[in-house]
This record gives sequence, structure tokens and C-alpha cells, in this order.
Amino acid sequence: MIKEISILNLVQTDLERVEAKMRSIAPDSYAPLAEAFMQLLAGGGKRLRPALALATYRLFHPNTSEKSVALAAAIEMLHTATLVHDDLIDNALVRRGVTTLNAQWNKGATVLAGDYLFAQAAGFAAETENVPVIQLFADTLRIIVEGELRQLFSSRQWQQSRDAYYPRIFAKTASLFASATKSGALLAGATDEQVQELYAYGKDVGMAFQIVDDILDYSGEEATLGKPVGGDLRQGIVTLPFYYFLQNHADPESVLHALDARNDTEQDGVADIVGDIVAQVRQSPAMTQASNEAAAFATAAKMRLGNFEPGPYRSALEELADFVVARHV
Amino acid sequence: MIKEISILNLVQTDLERVEAKMRSIAPDSYAPLAEAFMQLLAGGGKRLRPALALATYRLFHPNTSEKSVALAAAIEMLHTATLVHDDLIDNALVRRGVTTLNAQWNKGATVLAGDYLFAQAAGFAAETENVPVIQLFADTLRIIVEGELRQLFSSRQWQQSRDAYYPRIFAKTASLFASATKSGALLAGATDEQVQELYAYGKDVGMAFQIVDDILDYSGEEATLGKPVGGDLRQGIVTLPFYYFLQNHADPESVLHALDARNDTEQDGVADIVGDIVAQVRQSPAMTQASNEAAAFATAAKMRLGNFEPGPYRSALEELADFVVARHV
Repeated sequence: MIKEISILNLVQTDLERVEAKMRSIAPDSYAPLAEAFMQLLAGGGKRLRPALALATYRLFHPNTSEKSVALAAAIEMLHTATLVHDDLIDNALVRRGVTTLNAQWNKGATVLAGDYLFAQAAGFAAETENVPVIQLFADTLRIIVEGELRQLFSSRQWQQSRDAYYPRIFAKTASLFASATKSGALLAGATDEQVQELYAYGKDVGMAFQIVDDILDYSGEEATLGKPVGGDLRQGIVTLPFYYFLQNHADPESVLHALDARNDTEQDGVADIVGDIVAQVRQSPAMTQASNEAAAFATAAKMRLGNFEPGPYRSALEELADFVVARHV
Repeated sequence: MIKEISILNLVQTDLERVEAKMRSIAPDSYAPLAEAFMQLLAGGGKRLRPALALATYRLFHPNTSEKSVALAAAIEMLHTATLVHDDLIDNALVRRGVTTLNAQWNKGATVLAGDYLFAQAAGFAAETENVPVIQLFADTLRIIVEGELRQLFSSRQWQQSRDAYYPRIFAKTASLFASATKSGALLAGATDEQVQELYAYGKDVGMAFQIVDDILDYSGEEATLGKPVGGDLRQGIVTLPFYYFLQNHADPESVLHALDARNDTEQDGVADIVGDIVAQVRQSPAMTQASNEAAAFATAAKMRLGNFEPGPYRSALEELADFVVARHV
């Protein structure tokens, strides 16, 4: 078990306000919809993104405001909305150990449920009444979706460069982390320089987070992951561990050939080609290479905080950077 | 043919700026995506919604501003985004005589393309830098999606009251018309009372528009509609013509029985039950009853404009109210 992280304790009360705000969106009139939303929110993760927004805000302010709670709710709601559509697109049946919405509902209801969460997220963002925050929010949504489209169109292109991987995980994950910290700072009235530093901090934490996620997709256990191991490779998504594995491989062509031939063999039930490759990646030095990159992002993130006054919130943000990397030990 | 409507001529130059703004969103890097968006935008309708926003703004201002163009683009982009998801949900293959996105792309790409358009719409709304406009925009998105969810959950409930129909078409259509005029007025700095009048005008025009759309779904020709006739009933959606048809019918139970039994007969290819009912509705007095309601909304809409200074934009808005009703002649 990983120890409790103090950022979540520090902003615990605020996070409860965020939860209450998110729960308030369930439309009274539709019992099935209300139930589904409650289930979605109950199955939520650690709330790192709203915690980041709240903690960043409180680097500058002694107290949380209605608007910082709205901002944190907007960030988490946007994240939840993208997950609903992602799971539909991937035909994922389980996330965080909980049945997905698309496993229970039809395509139409799931698309609309995601849209409804987007609408609520936009409404929460608008409650901040802060135009730069709202503009950042819209930009981030665009970046996330554009990244997902890019991922979809580049699926099963096994030989992607590392240079393609970074913008992809920025779009997918780091952009929202960076948006959480930047908008927390904007809302708190931080200087331009502080806003930039905190944006960079959030981005680095997000990059580290996603690299670790990509490592866990190979090294994790299904029970802990809450989803099947090796899912990325099965979906044709190339991540850092696979990139290094292929770089190091004596005969990369044989791997590519096996992956390209995959559909046929799986239909025949002869062998789990992807499972074999996942096992090879897992035992290879590629895992450490990828880990080192995550650690480097976490270190960079902490350095971004050097110019801020020491205090519990700064410490908590530093600790969070370590936490996202420690997840895979 | 229906004569040209002067509102579109009056704001023609402005609408061209809106088109250019909408076309600017296609991501350079993805040829298939860029092409699909160009095709979507080229297949667009009359641009009534952005024309309403622009004309309302110009009731108060001699010139169009960057911000009113951004607002108009936000409104039309939001509309386009909802159509992309609607067509996916309905499995519609053709809209306005053009192949839909989901007929060409897979589910995932279509969901994301719609999300991308939502993001761009939110970005355009944020460009207005007007918090009440942005809040209205988010609210409207929520109302539209909630309405679609309600429609989905109430599908094939043939005996819906007329009281259920009105909120449904408000959510689906009139909310965005009302949002276009209200936000045009807000952006122009109109008084609260003027904002309310113009909101009511937009809402009434939208209600008339949707009732006429629902009539055309029975009375139109496939070639003119750009989609199959009787589509609503086939999807289990009850609209005003069917509501009155059922009210007037000597033996409504027989109609309901035929509709409920429909799946079996269609599978057997024995008869087009729905086609028969559509033909009956089409020839019934229900059509005139529904028409009269649309006309009443158009008249109410024009009355909302009574307190505004006479001028070309007021005249154009009055004419638009007549136009939406004249569409079905």
C-alpha cells in the first residue's frame, strides 16, 4: 500500500465540497440517469486533478472560495466526461474495477451522458466568472479531444517515434493537470510568472503520471489496475515501454510481424500473441528506462516550485510529484 | 420555392465571417479530419441561428464586432456538434441530402468529432469574454442534451401528453434559438427588459420552427427533406401531428397496437405499418391543427418585437418569424 498523500488530507474538506457540487448535477426527473451518475461519481479515482487546482489556489489564499470549488468540480467533471466517451470508444467494460456506463447502457445514452457531463463541466467553469480560466478550460477540452482523435488515427502504427508519444500524453493527460494548476493560479490572482511556473509544474506532474500509467499497463495486476493488463497494446496504442522494448530488440521486425498477424491467430484461439509480447516487455529493461523518464518529470515538477514560499501547500505539491511516480513500486 | 429571406441578405457579410471562422477550426495535421469538417460545414443549413444572433446584435449596434461573429460561430458550431452526435445515436445515414459522418466513420471517430466541435464551440463562446453569454451557452448545451436524453428514454411511449411535447421541443430546438437572440442582446448591452423580450422572441420562433419541422417529417418529400419521411414515428418519437391524429382517431388503440406489433411485421417484410400510419396522419386534420399552433407561435414572436424601434433589423426578425412557418407550404 502507498501511504496517504498529504495533499488529499490538506484539501479534504474542500474536496468534499467538490463532491457535493458534482453530485448536485443529477437530474431529479430521471431516476436511471441520476443513478448512473451517482455510480460514475462513486467510482471516481483519487481526485488528484481537483486537489491540484485547490492546493494551487491555496498557495495564495488562506481559504477556499465558491469559485475555486467550482473550478475543481469543472476539472474533475471534464475528466469524467472524457472517460465516459473513452470507454464507449474502447468498448471498455470495466474501469477502476467498476462496470462502465457503456456496459450497461446503449450507445446513444452513453454518448449523451458524456455530453451532459461536458455541459455540466462547462457550467461549473463558467461559475468561476473568470474569462481566462474559462478560455483555458475550452482550450483544454479541445486539446484532449484532438489528442484522442490523433490516437485513434494512429492506432496500430507500431513504429511511432518517441517525439510522437510526448505530445500524445500531453494532450491526453498532462494538459488537464496543467490546466488545473494554471487555472487555480489564475483564479487566485497570481502573477504571470507564477502562473507560468505552476502551469509547467502541472504539466510535468501530468507527464510523469501518464508515463507511470503506461508502465502500469504492462507491470500491473488486473485486480489493482481495475482493468485488463496490456490493454494499450491490444488496442494498438504504442507507449513508452513498448517504444523502448522495440528499440532494444535484436529483431524488432519479428515483433511487428507477430502484432500485424495477430487478428488471425486470436480468431483461431491458437495463442495470445499480445499477451506474450506484454510479458516480454514487462521483463525487459524498457520498464526501467520508462520509469527513469517519469522520475525525471517528477524532479522537474518539484523544481518549478522553488520560487514559492515554503509552506504546507507547497510541500503537498512537492509530495504529489513524488507520489505519482511512487505509484508503480 | 420560398423567396429569399431578407435577414440572410442583411447579415450576409457577417455570415461569411462566421463561415470563415468555423472553417478555421479544421486541424491542419489531420487530413481526414479536416476534410470531414469541411464536408460537414459545407452541408450546413440556412444558418438561421447565427443570423438570429447577428441580427439581434445589430438591433442595437450599427456594426458587427469580432465578438458577435464569435458568438454566432459558437451557436452554429454547438448546433453542428449536436447534429453529429444525434446522427450517430439515430444511426442516420443522410442529413440535408448529404452522407452523415457516422455513415463514413466508425463510432469512436464520430463521438470524438462531435466532442471536438463542442470544444470549438465553447472556445468561440469564451471569445466573447462576456460571462453571462458564456454561462447561457453552457446552460443551453445542458438543456439540449438533457432534452435528448429525455427523448431517448421516452421513445416508443406513444401516448404522450401535449404537455410533454412542448418542453421537449424547447430543449431540442427553441432553447438554442432563444439563446442566440438573448446572447446577441446581452453582448450588445441591451437592457434587462429588452434581453427578456428578445429571449421570448427567439424561443417562440424556435417553437414554431420545430413544430413545422415535425409537420414536414410527415408532409415533406424525401428529396426536399434530405432524409426519409416519417422518420420520427419510425424512431418512436411522438410529435404534434401524431398527437392530434391519435386524439382525433375513432379507435386509437388499433393504431397503438399496430405500432407495438411493428417490429415483427417489418422483419417479415409483410407490410410497412409505419408508412401506412404516416400516410394517414398526413391526410388528417391533425396537420392543420399542428400548423395552427406553429402560426400562433410565429405571431407571438412578432409581437415581442413591438417595443423595439422600427428598422431593417426589426423587420428582418419579423419576417423570419413568418418564414419559419411558411416553410411547410
